[in-house]
Amino acid sequence: MGGWERNIRRVVPYTPGEQPQDPGIIKLNTNENPYPPSPTFMHAVREWDGKGLRLYPDPSAGVLVDAIAAYHGLQPGQVFVGVGSDDVLAMSFLTFFNSSKPILFPDITYSFYDVWAELFRIPYERLKLAEDLSIVPSDYLRENGGIIFPNPNAPTGIVMGSDAIESILEHNRDVVVIVDEAYVDFGASSVLPLIEKYENLLVVRTFSKSRSLAGLRIGYAMGSAVLIKYLNDVKFSFNSYTMDQPTVCLGAKAMEDEEYFQQTLRKIIDTREWAKKELCALGFQCTDSRANFIFAKHRSCPGERLYDVLRRAGIYVRHFDQDRIRDHLRISVGTQEEMGILVRFLKDHLSSI
Amino acid sequence: MGGWERNIRRVVPYTPGEQPQDPGIIKLNTNENPYPPSPTFMHAVREWDGKGLRLYPDPSAGVLVDAIAAYHGLQPGQVFVGVGSDDVLAMSFLTFFNSSKPILFPDITYSFYDVWAELFRIPYERLKLAEDLSIVPSDYLRENGGIIFPNPNAPTGIVMGSDAIESILEHNRDVVVIVDEAYVDFGASSVLPLIEKYENLLVVRTFSKSRSLAGLRIGYAMGSAVLIKYLNDVKFSFNSYTMDQPTVCLGAKAMEDEEYFQQTLRKIIDTREWAKKELCALGFQCTDSRANFIFAKHRSCPGERLYDVLRRAGIYVRHFDQDRIRDHLRISVGTQEEMGILVRFLKDHLSSI
Repeated sequence: MGGWERNIRRVVPYTPGEQPQDPGIIKLNTNENPYPPSPTFMHAVREWDGKGLRLYPDPSAGVLVDAIAAYHGLQPGQVFVGVGSDDVLAMSFLTFFNSSKPILFPDITYSFYDVWAELFRIPYERLKLAEDLSIVPSDYLRENGGIIFPNPNAPTGIVMGSDAIESILEHNRDVVVIVDEAYVDFGASSVLPLIEKYENLLVVRTFSKSRSLAGLRIGYAMGSAVLIKYLNDVKFSFNSYTMDQPTVCLGAKAMEDEEYFQQTLRKIIDTREWAKKELCALGFQCTDSRANFIFAKHRSCPGERLYDVLRRAGIYVRHFDQDRIRDHLRISVGTQEEMGILVRFLKDHLSSI
Repeated sequence: MGGWERNIRRVVPYTPGEQPQDPGIIKLNTNENPYPPSPTFMHAVREWDGKGLRLYPDPSAGVLVDAIAAYHGLQPGQVFVGVGSDDVLAMSFLTFFNSSKPILFPDITYSFYDVWAELFRIPYERLKLAEDLSIVPSDYLRENGGIIFPNPNAPTGIVMGSDAIESILEHNRDVVVIVDEAYVDFGASSVLPLIEKYENLLVVRTFSKSRSLAGLRIGYAMGSAVLIKYLNDVKFSFNSYTMDQPTVCLGAKAMEDEEYFQQTLRKIIDTREWAKKELCALGFQCTDSRANFIFAKHRSCPGERLYDVLRRAGIYVRHFDQDRIRDHLRISVGTQEEMGILVRFLKDHLSSI
């Protein structure tokens, strides 16, 4: 080891789901949207001519911020954008979680939270989910340096009601509370209206799931103007221009075409409920997921074994080698056809797995 | 102030040069390339159909990394890519500069270095440039926690020879040394060959200047595989997917068309030398800049006054309100026509400024 290696920040990075390039694979492992972006958006892609790429993009990503703010009925100063919600969350950890007290999040949740905490050396406590894998709101009333959880939670898909979230906010006015609403469009209630009441509430969203744009990398946060200002100060201390020109210009278009957006959501929700019923009939137990994935455990077949067999059949799902959920699979909701193939395969092979 | 504001990371962000939207403005303030990206690249933009945008991009940005590695005759494992060189540098500060000893950089240099140091609470020392505004290599032999400087330096454009850089490397085997070669293509010698000899040397480049792609946000670093691996570990602990699909696919195309690339560089260098001569004739003193900007000071007219008058005339240049360079202007090299307009304006108005 060279002497220079002594001062390296050593970390264990987050492992994203695989991105296989074979188009024959049924890819139900990273919660992407099975439907393409809206026709309005795709038209904008064809129209985009790359003019002016020699110039820096607008550092404030104004066109994109304005489109998001208008969609949600907010002021632009209440919106922060980043390179996917991971960038937004990383910046938020860096900006808001600087207490010597631990931040709190569930023990079973988005597995990037502890990676960011480790990266930035933020003390943290993982609070145990209840037996039914739901978050226990009353656990979040203890002293802490900040709070973050997804709603719906991942990978369970289970929703926490807005009243429970508000009780957490009421008891935590001295720290920043982040509600990660990556999956909220698929059937949960948003706490966005509460940002007017709690200036320490940050609501985070992404274009990667409901807006079918994982490839474009856009996430955003909404909160009080003062909260967003702090976040922007840190972002502008990190990289002036995080959002490139095509992303700013095309991303704004993704907020149009509300009808297509709602239709797509409806199809995914219908397919999710259909697939859950079919899986139950095959001996699976499913959580009440309101996300674009199903979280399911078979009554007898171990999770890892199922994962392997499906993978060999060209059906990729996600398995987490973690206590209490080792026998679960997280299955992203694909098209009705893809989910039909999954169900048919399980029908044919479950008895021999 | 809400109690929650106590644990905010408070920072004074870097101020990027203005990005005025009026196309009538002669924009010589942010060192963009006055010429568009290559025809091969623009053809790829027209061909890009946005297919597959619903899927996450390749987290390793393989196509882009491979293209950069091939161009420089390196292995892909020796190349790291980021959202502009600012992202690459921010990640590098976070990864490599974790000593309790101060990192070293020049007092007059890219003004983001101290912003990153403040953001990540890294101790630092700014070492004074010589009277002629050149970096003094022997200053960098003292004990330190890491070293970074641009070559050519910004905003002076002055080059440090490879021998001097190697002497710094020889004396600093216990820390990471970053040479920021954002402007190297415009006439300096690169220390890239030295990465084979010094595994603690990181060489950073950008697509924003010489490759005419500031709008696409691509920067990269080259170094030993072990150095790049540490950088990737931190990047994957921050954001799995920093490079979006259009950037990865189009960025790779920007490494083609070497002839156009060289022609563009030649035009910029010729215009720079022409403009320097003209400015000297008008009473300016110019550094020997080998970058795509001129750093000039008038014998009698204060820098801020010149900046204001030019700005009102629709010619944007950059002024730094900082000791020793307060009377300098940093003037990006535009097209021959744009620089002609600048020179003509000064000829007509200097006597009355």
